Amino acid sequence: MDYLKIFAPATVANVSCGFDSLGFAVDAIGDEMTFTKTTEKGVKITNITGANLTYNVDENAASAVVKKILNEANADFGIELTIHKGFSPGSGLGSSAASAAGAAFGANQLLGNIYSDLELTKFAMFGEEVACGTPIADNVSAAIYGGFVLVRSYSPLEIIKLPVPSELRVVAIHPQVEVKTKDAREVLPTEIALKDAVTQWANVGGLISGLYSDNYKLISNSLVDIIVEPHRKKLIPFFDDVKNAATKAGALGAGISGSGPTIFALCKGDKIAKDVYKSIEESYKNTGIDFEMFISKVNHEGIKILE
Amino acid sequence: MDYLKIFAPATVANVSCGFDSLGFAVDAIGDEMTFTKTTEKGVKITNITGANLTYNVDENAASAVVKKILNEANADFGIELTIHKGFSPGSGLGSSAASAAGAAFGANQLLGNIYSDLELTKFAMFGEEVACGTPIADNVSAAIYGGFVLVRSYSPLEIIKLPVPSELRVVAIHPQVEVKTKDAREVLPTEIALKDAVTQWANVGGLISGLYSDNYKLISNSLVDIIVEPHRKKLIPFFDDVKNAATKAGALGAGISGSGPTIFALCKGDKIAKDVYKSIEESYKNTGIDFEMFISKVNHEGIKILE
Repeated sequence: MDYLKIFAPATVANVSCGFDSLGFAVDAIGDEMTFTKTTEKGVKITNITGANLTYNVDENAASAVVKKILNEANADFGIELTIHKGFSPGSGLGSSAASAAGAAFGANQLLGNIYSDLELTKFAMFGEEVACGTPIADNVSAAIYGGFVLVRSYSPLEIIKLPVPSELRVVAIHPQVEVKTKDAREVLPTEIALKDAVTQWANVGGLISGLYSDNYKLISNSLVDIIVEPHRKKLIPFFDDVKNAATKAGALGAGISGSGPTIFALCKGDKIAKDVYKSIEESYKNTGIDFEMFISKVNHEGIKILE
Repeated sequence: MDYLKIFAPATVANVSCGFDSLGFAVDAIGDEMTFTKTTEKGVKITNITGANLTYNVDENAASAVVKKILNEANADFGIELTIHKGFSPGSGLGSSAASAAGAAFGANQLLGNIYSDLELTKFAMFGEEVACGTPIADNVSAAIYGGFVLVRSYSPLEIIKLPVPSELRVVAIHPQVEVKTKDAREVLPTEIALKDAVTQWANVGGLISGLYSDNYKLISNSLVDIIVEPHRKKLIPFFDDVKNAATKAGALGAGISGSGPTIFALCKGDKIAKDVYKSIEESYKNTGIDFEMFISKVNHEGIKILE
């Protein structure tokens, strides 16, 4: 294989109760990337569209990952890379993660598929470190594994792929405001009440149980975040209005995607998802803040080869 | 039905990572109780063996539950009760919970099975309140539902029955020391680090995922408690020695049963369970502290009708 084009999905991390532990991939939006083998060694980005990102190989999450993976594999070839960002950086939908995960996946294909998904996740985490300063795994593992993932442990890294009930749909709204990851971290307490932690981990348990048992009611009951959301929602204008609009229209639950500002809602079936989309749209259209929205299936297969 | 005899199982609450949320029932030990319909209304305990417990109907967890359930059902009959305690109160194995759960189950049978497992759990929680001052659900729900349970929420009460991998075995040691539930509560911090909570809920997620997917390795990796065990183990002499003995002999993990002093180990298969039993026994026999041990399957069916 000398060339491939891939789709690397956007991802929702945290998923209400699962702060820093849970994530899932969405089907409707993501990055498209091409990888072309070159006889000359090294990595080069030849084109970036859809967002204003650096072409500096060591500073761009995607090229940094490709460089690392080619080095580690002792590859006797180089790669030319194009990146088409299908969604905005800073949205809370794992923009750098999609590029980093796509980069690891694409380079691995040209290497003859020598690395496991867990190894690709580690390479992609390096891209997250380049882009955000922290090698966070939840977005990149969701992009690579597809579906829902649980980051069970960082040391050693253990990623668990969870099942996805077939009717699960996601609706999301991205208000065009900036929430810096740094601010979203700083607004969090370093200490929390033990009794709140118990409530939260019972919900994590309930959500995971609901995913395994196709129990939408249980998923709905468990999509509650009493630890992080109360602090971070202050950074997202009209968060409560969106959440109320979503649940009133029948969403299973709604919360902050990653560190925001995107707000996601999970729904059972296409009909309710459409209702939820309209209800959220209605709730936001008079706020004076621009926004983008999408409706999507949960992506089950992770990164897809397009060509 | 005018008479029945039942077996109400001992239970392990918390299960390492799942403080105040997870529990499971064991097969080998528990209480035997009989229930005899009387034309005269009211409740009477006619015999208690195996432990020194009160015959006062309102102070004994079992009779208090029977009284409450007969009142609520507006029953036109009474019940005479005998209780044979198969294990010691104060062991951390849900002694009062077994009696309370058994009482709710037995009375419900004589009433013609009119209450659901969830309703029986609520009645049994009243028994826990009578016995311990707090209407805790994890032990009683494990006894009633059998297998592993998750207490997803108290308000409203939601109990999730989790699957149990078929080869799961439990080994337990009950050192004959007293750990007061009050002390075991007071030794806990009211606040914990958010990052530790994340580690803990990722383990809760991993344990539940492991139960659903028959993944013993994942169960083993997830049987970690960094929040409660470090504090409570100080109340249990030679806890670390027992835990090391268990894991060295191949246990999936080990931890404190409820608030102790019983220490449980989960194992895959009978052979390893026997090795773990011997290894723990060996580790404790020269401590100068008396102890009891058992080896058991996980109880899948909850309370059983014997006659």
